[in-house]
Amino acid sequence: MARSNMHVILRLEMDKKQITFGEIATSINNSGGDVVAIDVIKEGPVMTIRDITIKVANEKEQQRIVNEVNGLAGVSVRHVSDRTFLVHLGGKIEVKSKLDINNREQLSQVYTPEVARVSQAIDTNPLLAYNLTIKNNAVAVISDGTAVLGLGKIKPEAAMPVMEGKAMLFKRFANINAYPLCLNTTDTEEIIQVIKALSPSFGGINLEDIASPQCFEIEERLKKEMDIPVFHDDQHGTAIVVLAGIFNALKLTKKNIEDCKIVVCGIGAAGTAITKMLLNAGAGNVVGVDREGAIHKGNNYDNATWSWYAKHTNPNNEQGPLSTVIKDADIFIGVSAGGILKVDDVKKMAKNPVVFALANPNPEILPEDADPYVRVMATGRSDYPNQVNNVLCFPGIFRGVLDCRASAINEEMKLAAAKAIASTISEDELNEEYIIPGVFNTQVVQNISEAVIQAAHDTGVARKV
Amino acid sequence: MARSNMHVILRLEMDKKQITFGEIATSINNSGGDVVAIDVIKEGPVMTIRDITIKVANEKEQQRIVNEVNGLAGVSVRHVSDRTFLVHLGGKIEVKSKLDINNREQLSQVYTPEVARVSQAIDTNPLLAYNLTIKNNAVAVISDGTAVLGLGKIKPEAAMPVMEGKAMLFKRFANINAYPLCLNTTDTEEIIQVIKALSPSFGGINLEDIASPQCFEIEERLKKEMDIPVFHDDQHGTAIVVLAGIFNALKLTKKNIEDCKIVVCGIGAAGTAITKMLLNAGAGNVVGVDREGAIHKGNNYDNATWSWYAKHTNPNNEQGPLSTVIKDADIFIGVSAGGILKVDDVKKMAKNPVVFALANPNPEILPEDADPYVRVMATGRSDYPNQVNNVLCFPGIFRGVLDCRASAINEEMKLAAAKAIASTISEDELNEEYIIPGVFNTQVVQNISEAVIQAAHDTGVARKV
Repeated sequence: MARSNMHVILRLEMDKKQITFGEIATSINNSGGDVVAIDVIKEGPVMTIRDITIKVANEKEQQRIVNEVNGLAGVSVRHVSDRTFLVHLGGKIEVKSKLDINNREQLSQVYTPEVARVSQAIDTNPLLAYNLTIKNNAVAVISDGTAVLGLGKIKPEAAMPVMEGKAMLFKRFANINAYPLCLNTTDTEEIIQVIKALSPSFGGINLEDIASPQCFEIEERLKKEMDIPVFHDDQHGTAIVVLAGIFNALKLTKKNIEDCKIVVCGIGAAGTAITKMLLNAGAGNVVGVDREGAIHKGNNYDNATWSWYAKHTNPNNEQGPLSTVIKDADIFIGVSAGGILKVDDVKKMAKNPVVFALANPNPEILPEDADPYVRVMATGRSDYPNQVNNVLCFPGIFRGVLDCRASAINEEMKLAAAKAIASTISEDELNEEYIIPGVFNTQVVQNISEAVIQAAHDTGVARKV
Repeated sequence: MARSNMHVILRLEMDKKQITFGEIATSINNSGGDVVAIDVIKEGPVMTIRDITIKVANEKEQQRIVNEVNGLAGVSVRHVSDRTFLVHLGGKIEVKSKLDINNREQLSQVYTPEVARVSQAIDTNPLLAYNLTIKNNAVAVISDGTAVLGLGKIKPEAAMPVMEGKAMLFKRFANINAYPLCLNTTDTEEIIQVIKALSPSFGGINLEDIASPQCFEIEERLKKEMDIPVFHDDQHGTAIVVLAGIFNALKLTKKNIEDCKIVVCGIGAAGTAITKMLLNAGAGNVVGVDREGAIHKGNNYDNATWSWYAKHTNPNNEQGPLSTVIKDADIFIGVSAGGILKVDDVKKMAKNPVVFALANPNPEILPEDADPYVRVMATGRSDYPNQVNNVLCFPGIFRGVLDCRASAINEEMKLAAAKAIASTISEDELNEEYIIPGVFNTQVVQNISEAVIQAAHDTGVARKV
């Protein structure tokens, strides 16, 4: 796993006659910790209490340091706080008023009796909700906690920190008001019902960390039954950023997507969404591989998604494991598990191979292993070049959708978003280590939103002229 | 209706050769308008464009002024904006991050990969959600739009401005993060299901503007089936503030609640809740009156609430219309309709009568009419003394509930809140025109929350030591 940014704060009580702070710091450094700050909490003639902030690699190292410091004569560790936990205290977001209420007049304008006239106006023309309420700039970030990060199924309360983080990113990158809602149900019908009931208050719904195959039905049904757009970020956010990277990789390798053999490894929610986008973008030969090998037409699949997959991909009906079907592939896209792609597999690929090894935290193949044999490589990690990170997509796509009051996010809009991300890197800048823009590149949101608005107008789903 | 605070902004194009601004202002004043601001938008040698902000009594007066100004030679009204609508543009609240995200380190602390450790900790101990997520200070303001203000049933989108206003009040008076959710369903079971599903993300639920009798079942069921408190403000908020006023009125009239005959007029959601609180506070003789006259034991009621009411009130089994049962009443509490209580009725009341005429915007009797005959009078209006306003209650009660992580809001807590509001006015300050504190009195929230926390501990529903 990548070097962590974990910080820990040790509250130490030390006897100045027995030990100096320098000795303690040396001991922490020798145990692998990095002292980044010291705060004096209480200073006495003999005893002193200090908070020491230390950067550590992981929880094991943290424990080692605590034990080490506790073992020093004249020092006792009174409390250990983790800085990541400290930033979470009380939650990471808040709801604020845009206006002050300091007198009767302001009170009666934003609440009774004046607000009644605003309500009446919206009741007469519900589209006015987009002008006169938060709906125009509000997204619900909804999860049932069934597939959270790499943790799998956790309690809905436990998914909240992730959804609050997502809400922060919506605000930071696209100035969108996102509210995190974690549901106390994992029943498909109930989730659909709840989200439909919530739709009047939001301009869009971002589904997050919902397990497959339930996520497919939830999204499809909501698309049909609601008049606001719904977007399952784990599927489409990933697919859009992957496509953006592929578009740029193809510019470097001077290949057409129509002519490429593309192997997608791991046919779950993300793998399926990536494949659909590849097909929509013109890919002619996509081969999906999962644990049972290549998905092909000869086989019967219980899984409805795989049946669909067999029908629409693998035109040459290739069969066998990844090590077989990888032969002559131009592109490998892995959304599966760490270490699955071997160096020998990469060697079998076509000339100028492109490898997207997106499993987190351990990619399908490590860049340092693949490097001698691949032309372009991307991962999901921030400590290698070309990070496929969903935060590149969802802020911009929702910014566009909200600004044109789109009723849906369709294939054309997703493709436009992918092209917009790709085009953020100019031909001059483009190189093997820079096919995907960085997450703090402010041009990305603007490019995506403009492209998405245009595509929404072209396809008739924009409701704002 | 009370004099409105309605503001309108007229954008005028005027020909300076034909008319002066003074002439226009005079014309506006003569039509009943009050010019409060002038902004020059564009100044030319002959033509000038100005925005004139005018205070008007109502929409009729606004139209009269617009017509009048449009009729002046050399002036044309190019646009009319209503200031209340202007403050609603884009909604009145926003969701903000409590922390900046300006670099990779911050990003990885509030989102992946670091957030995963916080999620794991909560998954192991769900009560940690109160420490590490917004839950500890978050309330959902939920309506189905079936009984909004005096408007009755409106579309859920149209209820949003009211709920956003409520969210602003939560923030302003108690620093609580409240999120407005208007539901696209009026089905009791579905509403219950939706709110239960949402419960992991909130520390409490404020039900708002839901029609009776559905509101009773929704609240009762949620109380049984959720582990966070639920509070239907239209019932209990009103009841608590009424009780606070009654407590102080009784101090002035030197009567005991046990000995009083109390007539409650209008036995809907608020009237029922007020009655229940009166009974809990020791009232021995409450007589409920609705359109069919006094609710009494001899009658059979289809309405389950009225059957309950007949069983628990009116010990002397009084019958007949309001004008009959009002005889010898010490207290009248109206939550019914304008003008229902006549001067002759008030004359029949016991000595030192107390009249709470809470129908909005037109009270059951106007204070100027009742004044010669009543000792203490309260209304729901801000332009008379002693306004019964829910904003006195819900911020403080939720502040207390959240701070002690209460699992419920029980009768003891509501009674404690009423007493706390009453006690905000000292014996020295107390007089016939000051039995209820003002909405901007900051002591109210503090007094209520302290009393509610104490009552929560006393009754075993506080979960924070």
